[in-house]
Amino acid sequence: MDHPVLDLSLDAGALTARLVDFRSESGDEKALADAIERELRALAHLTVDRYGNNVVARTNLGRAERVVLAGHIDTVPIADNVPSRLDEDGVLWGCGTSDMKSGVAVQLRIAATVPEPNRDLTFVFYDNEEVAADRNGLGHVAKAHPEWLAGDFAVLLEPSDGQVEGGCQGTLRVLLRTSGERAHSARAWMGSNAIHAAAPILARLAAYEPRRPVIDGLEYHEGLNAVRIEGGVAGNVIPDECTVTVNFRYAPDRTGNEALAHVREVFADCGVTEFVVDDHSGGALPGLSHPAAAAFMEAVGGTPRPKFGWTDVARFSALGVPAVNYGPGDPIYAHKRDEHVVTERITHCEERLRSWLTS
Amino acid sequence: MDHPVLDLSLDAGALTARLVDFRSESGDEKALADAIERELRALAHLTVDRYGNNVVARTNLGRAERVVLAGHIDTVPIADNVPSRLDEDGVLWGCGTSDMKSGVAVQLRIAATVPEPNRDLTFVFYDNEEVAADRNGLGHVAKAHPEWLAGDFAVLLEPSDGQVEGGCQGTLRVLLRTSGERAHSARAWMGSNAIHAAAPILARLAAYEPRRPVIDGLEYHEGLNAVRIEGGVAGNVIPDECTVTVNFRYAPDRTGNEALAHVREVFADCGVTEFVVDDHSGGALPGLSHPAAAAFMEAVGGTPRPKFGWTDVARFSALGVPAVNYGPGDPIYAHKRDEHVVTERITHCEERLRSWLTS
Repeated sequence: MDHPVLDLSLDAGALTARLVDFRSESGDEKALADAIERELRALAHLTVDRYGNNVVARTNLGRAERVVLAGHIDTVPIADNVPSRLDEDGVLWGCGTSDMKSGVAVQLRIAATVPEPNRDLTFVFYDNEEVAADRNGLGHVAKAHPEWLAGDFAVLLEPSDGQVEGGCQGTLRVLLRTSGERAHSARAWMGSNAIHAAAPILARLAAYEPRRPVIDGLEYHEGLNAVRIEGGVAGNVIPDECTVTVNFRYAPDRTGNEALAHVREVFADCGVTEFVVDDHSGGALPGLSHPAAAAFMEAVGGTPRPKFGWTDVARFSALGVPAVNYGPGDPIYAHKRDEHVVTERITHCEERLRSWLTS
Repeated sequence: MDHPVLDLSLDAGALTARLVDFRSESGDEKALADAIERELRALAHLTVDRYGNNVVARTNLGRAERVVLAGHIDTVPIADNVPSRLDEDGVLWGCGTSDMKSGVAVQLRIAATVPEPNRDLTFVFYDNEEVAADRNGLGHVAKAHPEWLAGDFAVLLEPSDGQVEGGCQGTLRVLLRTSGERAHSARAWMGSNAIHAAAPILARLAAYEPRRPVIDGLEYHEGLNAVRIEGGVAGNVIPDECTVTVNFRYAPDRTGNEALAHVREVFADCGVTEFVVDDHSGGALPGLSHPAAAAFMEAVGGTPRPKFGWTDVARFSALGVPAVNYGPGDPIYAHKRDEHVVTERITHCEERLRSWLTS
């Protein structure tokens, strides 16, 4: 397949269009990673490393601080919305315009045009963000070469509508099982009903009051919810098992262990016979009090917002690097057929970052 | 396939063995229906009708009362337990020994050996009892030729361990749905959780106190149970629908409409957004106060028991014919690989019926 030429001298909007037209659905990022690597190796002020289809480039100026700018290069499956289309209002339409080739375009523009930043820079381009967590390229780099991701502060250029989103909440998924004894439903008293035994679990969930703690000035919002319930053997059998799957989204002032202990405590007296941790990813503190973050906030302006969903900032957080989301796309249109981005916002985002890194 | 010869001059135990060896899994009853029809047509005191693989024979002596003796001729799938085997203790092993070829043997023996009963007799042999209700041969006859089933009292020779089981409870299955609004579980407050909304339903079920009414001297035992619960969209989505399937087993002093009204009332204030009747079969009163039934009880002896599960006696009840279960098999072994019957009990059952019909 013929791919567009990445020309880093184009403005960020035009470069976004090239990146969108350069198809790179999850699992099919090699050609784009090759092209990005080639362009970055042509820049004398950067050293470039590659691991799989993940490309990491950095300046080595011996500055007091190092900042990481990161973005994933894959997209969700294309839905008849490539090649991109620029309309008369300066809106660029197509798969990945928001999530997140506009952010990748900003990364590439900063890499190409800021050879002497006031902070050392690390650019991370990674694959497979839109699929399972165990395929995530940033996770692979963090495991194989954590030193490549070292820094004082990281910005993920994920769509955040040009606002700074700090940290992220953790997510814990637990299976709560209740037990009973099977019997024919015509003689129910010979058995014991596991679905009825789940009544206290649902009552506890319905009555739960989530916390809304303020951390670094950001108000988080926890949530404890059943996301699935399953029980039943046949239409005439008293069921001997019922499983409630509960998802706890918790603010980053709780550690993973604290979150787990909290959920155990909430359901301690609800007749749970089995408690299985199905999935768990810790949160990330916003880290906005770090000097690099404070300078960043001053440069980009606006009021930071908390990030409720789990994002890759937590991977940086786990490496000891405070991180935020800040990107030109609008997350509302991510993964949609009518995905689009206002090109002026891409340029604005690039200017704000350049101002922060050169002032 | 070669089939055994049905010889109605054999004793009831030996005839049961022949019937067991005459394979007739549900849907494959034609050969057995043919053989039964042939044997009955050879008896001059009976008139015989056939509808599908259902055979109905009757005496026409102008007696004051008419009694129906009914049994199904199909079995569940054979599980390496045919041909039958008679052990040294007089126990006959094999598929259908209990449920209910021993009962069919008793019907055939009475048909062959009681040409001048004190009550007119109707013998019903029907197919497809062990499968879906809409295939049940007794149901087909009831619909096409209800006059064939007319009578003052009916005995189904289903396995009841030689005890009289009166009437049967009704069964009503209802789907109770709750609704919510989907949202990402990281922003649960943007949606509304349909599983949490089911909490009052489960609480009501867990607290429900079933009635145990005494009818015609028999103590029934109702039950209201969840037999299935389902809800959930994905591990990170607040679910917008949850369905609790409830099975109400009710005593035969309630009509179907009363049972339905009761269930509606129980869950009236539980946030149910949709109430769907999935399945409903009314109960049957034991009818033990009817003179024919009283004489029957006196002849067979023992203490009648209530029937908790739904059985074909309800089909007779719907036609205005009081009915009971009374058969030589032990229901505990029905549908099992080690199904068996004590041959002495078959003979005993035959003698009790003959005594009632000739005294």
